[in-house]
Amino acid sequence: MKGNGNKHTVVIVGAGFGGIELARKLANTPLDVTILDRNNYHNFQPLMYQVATGGLGPDSIAFPIRRIFRKARNVRFRIAEVTEIHTESKFLSTSIGAIHYDSLVIATGSATNYFNFEPQKENLLSLKSIPDALDMRSTIIQNIERAANKADLKGEPQPINVVIIGGGPAGVELAGALAEMRKYVLPKDFPELDFARMRIYLYEAAPRLLASMSEKASSKTLEYLEKLGIIVRVGARVKDYDGVNVVTEDGSLIETKTVIWTAGVKGAPFDGLPEASVLPNKRILVDDFNRIIGVKDAYAIGDVAACITEENPRGEAMLAQVAMAIQQGKLLARNLLNMQRNEAPMPFSYHNKGVMATIGRRKAVVDLPVLHFQGAFAWFVWMFVHIMSLVGFRNKLITLTDWIINYINYDRPLGLMIRPARKIKKL
Amino acid sequence: MKGNGNKHTVVIVGAGFGGIELARKLANTPLDVTILDRNNYHNFQPLMYQVATGGLGPDSIAFPIRRIFRKARNVRFRIAEVTEIHTESKFLSTSIGAIHYDSLVIATGSATNYFNFEPQKENLLSLKSIPDALDMRSTIIQNIERAANKADLKGEPQPINVVIIGGGPAGVELAGALAEMRKYVLPKDFPELDFARMRIYLYEAAPRLLASMSEKASSKTLEYLEKLGIIVRVGARVKDYDGVNVVTEDGSLIETKTVIWTAGVKGAPFDGLPEASVLPNKRILVDDFNRIIGVKDAYAIGDVAACITEENPRGEAMLAQVAMAIQQGKLLARNLLNMQRNEAPMPFSYHNKGVMATIGRRKAVVDLPVLHFQGAFAWFVWMFVHIMSLVGFRNKLITLTDWIINYINYDRPLGLMIRPARKIKKL
Repeated sequence: MKGNGNKHTVVIVGAGFGGIELARKLANTPLDVTILDRNNYHNFQPLMYQVATGGLGPDSIAFPIRRIFRKARNVRFRIAEVTEIHTESKFLSTSIGAIHYDSLVIATGSATNYFNFEPQKENLLSLKSIPDALDMRSTIIQNIERAANKADLKGEPQPINVVIIGGGPAGVELAGALAEMRKYVLPKDFPELDFARMRIYLYEAAPRLLASMSEKASSKTLEYLEKLGIIVRVGARVKDYDGVNVVTEDGSLIETKTVIWTAGVKGAPFDGLPEASVLPNKRILVDDFNRIIGVKDAYAIGDVAACITEENPRGEAMLAQVAMAIQQGKLLARNLLNMQRNEAPMPFSYHNKGVMATIGRRKAVVDLPVLHFQGAFAWFVWMFVHIMSLVGFRNKLITLTDWIINYINYDRPLGLMIRPARKIKKL
Repeated sequence: MKGNGNKHTVVIVGAGFGGIELARKLANTPLDVTILDRNNYHNFQPLMYQVATGGLGPDSIAFPIRRIFRKARNVRFRIAEVTEIHTESKFLSTSIGAIHYDSLVIATGSATNYFNFEPQKENLLSLKSIPDALDMRSTIIQNIERAANKADLKGEPQPINVVIIGGGPAGVELAGALAEMRKYVLPKDFPELDFARMRIYLYEAAPRLLASMSEKASSKTLEYLEKLGIIVRVGARVKDYDGVNVVTEDGSLIETKTVIWTAGVKGAPFDGLPEASVLPNKRILVDDFNRIIGVKDAYAIGDVAACITEENPRGEAMLAQVAMAIQQGKLLARNLLNMQRNEAPMPFSYHNKGVMATIGRRKAVVDLPVLHFQGAFAWFVWMFVHIMSLVGFRNKLITLTDWIINYINYDRPLGLMIRPARKIKKL
C-alpha cells in the first residue's frame, strides 16, 4: 500500500483527460492522491469512432491507469463507482466502501443525453466508451450480415441504411468513416450486396455541421461529406425511431437497424450535491477556480463542470474540449499545491489552441486561433496531433502502423464482431 | 449474391483451421461452397493465451472470414449456428433457416469438457474463444484489483492465488505467461501488494506435463515452470471448487478467485447424427476418408473427427493438432474434387511435422520428428512458426511489433479490462 500518513488527501473521481492531467501534476508532491474510475484504463475519446469503424483496435486507444502512475509514489488507483457524496462529513459512498477526502475533484466527464429519445435508447448506438465502440462495430457488421442473409433468402435487395443523429465532431467523423467503408471495404467483403443502395444519413438540428467551428470549416465539411455520398440534413430533426423506421420531421420513414446517436451529452455527477449546484443538464456549477458552488473543498473540471461568468451566467456550452479539461486539471494541481503553502489560487482562463475534425482520406478541417485551413495538410496535422496525444509508445507505434496500412491498401483491417462472454461483474 | 446455378453444393460448418483450409483449396473450383460459423472471424487458437495475459490484442490473432475469401467467387460465408442435421433429406436447421447441402463437412472443432466440474463451470475460466480470452484477462486483473482494495481496507495481505487445471499446451503456456506477469509486470502496477505471496498452481492428472510430447520436453517444461516459481503437481487431481476454495486430492484448500480450466476438450457436433456415429466425448466417428460412419455425403475433419482404425478402434486421442486439421482439410478438398470427376478418393494419413510449446522468455520446447530441442533457439522457432501462421500481413506485423516491445521492456502492454456493453443478440 502506497503510504498516506497524515498528508492532505486529494480524491479524483474520473480518469479522463482532466483527472489524469491533474494527477500527473500532483505526482511526487507532498499531497496524497487517489484516482477512482469504473474502468482500469484511460481512453482516448477522440479516436473512439475509429475503433467503432474497424480502423483501430481497442487496445490502441486506451492505456491502463496504473501504468501511467508507476513512478508516482503518492498516487493510488482504485476501480470504483461513486454513488453519493456526503459534503458535510467529506466522504464518498462507493462500490468499494466509504472513501474520505480532504479535497475532492469531480472529473467524471459526460454521458450521452438522449433528450426525447430516452425511451428509445435501447435501440440506439452511442459512442462514449470502448464497449460502446465494440458494440457499434459488431452491430454495423451484424446488420450488413443480416441484409446479406435476407437477400439470399428473398432474392431481393435489402435496405442497409445507417442514420446518424448529431452533426458534431463524433457524428461527422463517423459519417466519413462509414462512407469510406461503403466505398472501399464493404463491396469487397459482401459481393452479394449492392452498396449503391446503402444510404447513410446525417441529421443535425442546428443550421450547420460542427457548430463550434468556423463557417468555413462547416461548409467544407458539408462539401466533403456530400462528395462521399452522405445525405446530410442540417436544421432538421428526426422525430422518432421504433426499432424499424426512423420518422423524419416531414413524416417520411427511413427503414434502418443502425441508428447512431451523437446528438447530445450531459454531465455525469452523482447524488448528494446541493440542487442549486447542478444544472438541468447535470453539469456542476463552478467558479473561476473550478470550486463547486456551495460545497467546501470540492472541485469540478472538464466536461462535467459549467463555469459561471458574467458574460456566461448559465455556464459555457459543453464542447467536449479535451484542451479545456487538460488546462483545468493543470491549473487545479497548481492551485491545490499553492493552497498547501497558503498561497492564493489563480483563476482559470481558457487558451484556445484550436479545434479540428477529420472526414476521410486527405479530408480534414482545422481551426487554429489565427488560421483556418482544410484538406490534405489539415488531415496530416490531425493525424500527427492525435498520434502524439496517445498515451504510451506502443499505442503510438501501433496506431501509426495501422493508419499506414489503411492508407496504402484502402482497407480497414479490424472487422471482428467481438461479443461479450459474460456480463459485467461488480467488484 | 455469388452464383450457384446447379453446381454441387458443399456446406462447411466451422471456420477453424480445418474448415478454412478446405474452403481455400475449393476456392475458384467448379464446386459451390458455403461456410457457416457463429463468429465472423477465424481465430488463431494457439495464441489465445497471449490475449488472455495481455501480450497481444484480440484483433491480432483473428481475421474476418469474408476477407480470406474476397477473391473466391464460389465461396459464400454466413453467420449461423447449426442446431440439427437432417441426414436423409440432406439439409441443416440453423439460426438463419434451413440450408441444403450436396456434401456436408463438419469442422466444428472442440468445446471445453468440464467432466465432473460441470456444475462448477460458471466459476471456472476457459480459453476456447476470443470473448473467453478477454474475460480471462479482465477477471485476472479484477481479482488482483480486488485484493489491492481489500489490503487497503483490512491492512493485511490478501491471497491472490491462481489455480490452473490441466497441464497440456494451454495450461503450460498460461502458467508461464502468468509467472512472467507476476515477476515483471504486476509488482510495477500494484506496489501495494506483495507478489511473493501470489501462488500459481498447475495441476495435471497424468504423470507428466505435455503428455503428447517427448519425455525430454516434459521434463524441461517442468524445470522451466519450477524455475519461474510455478507450483506444479503432476499425477494429481483437484476434487472440487466452490467459488472460494479449491479442494485438492489430499483435502487441503487453496483460496482463490481465479481457477482456469484447460483439462479437457470434447467434440462439438449438433443434433440429428445417428447415435452410433457419436462417441461419448461427442466426437464423430469417421473412416479413413473422413466420411462420417453411417451418414451419406457427410464428412468430419479436425478435432471433432475421431478416426477409427484397426490399431485405434476408439478413435485417436484429441490432441488439438492444428496440423492434422489442416492436412485433413487439404485432402478432403482433393477428394471432393476427385469424386466430381468420378475418381477414387485417397485415404488420410497424418504427417507429423512436429509439436511445440512455449513457457516464457527464451524458454520453449520443440519436438520435430527427427530432433527434439529446448531453450532459446526453440523459442525463436516457436515465434517464427506462429507469426508466419497468422492470417494477414497486418496481424503478422502487429504481433511481431508487440513481441519486440514486450521483449525489450519486459512488459505486457495490454492490460485493459474490456467488458461487454450488451449481451449477444441473435441474428
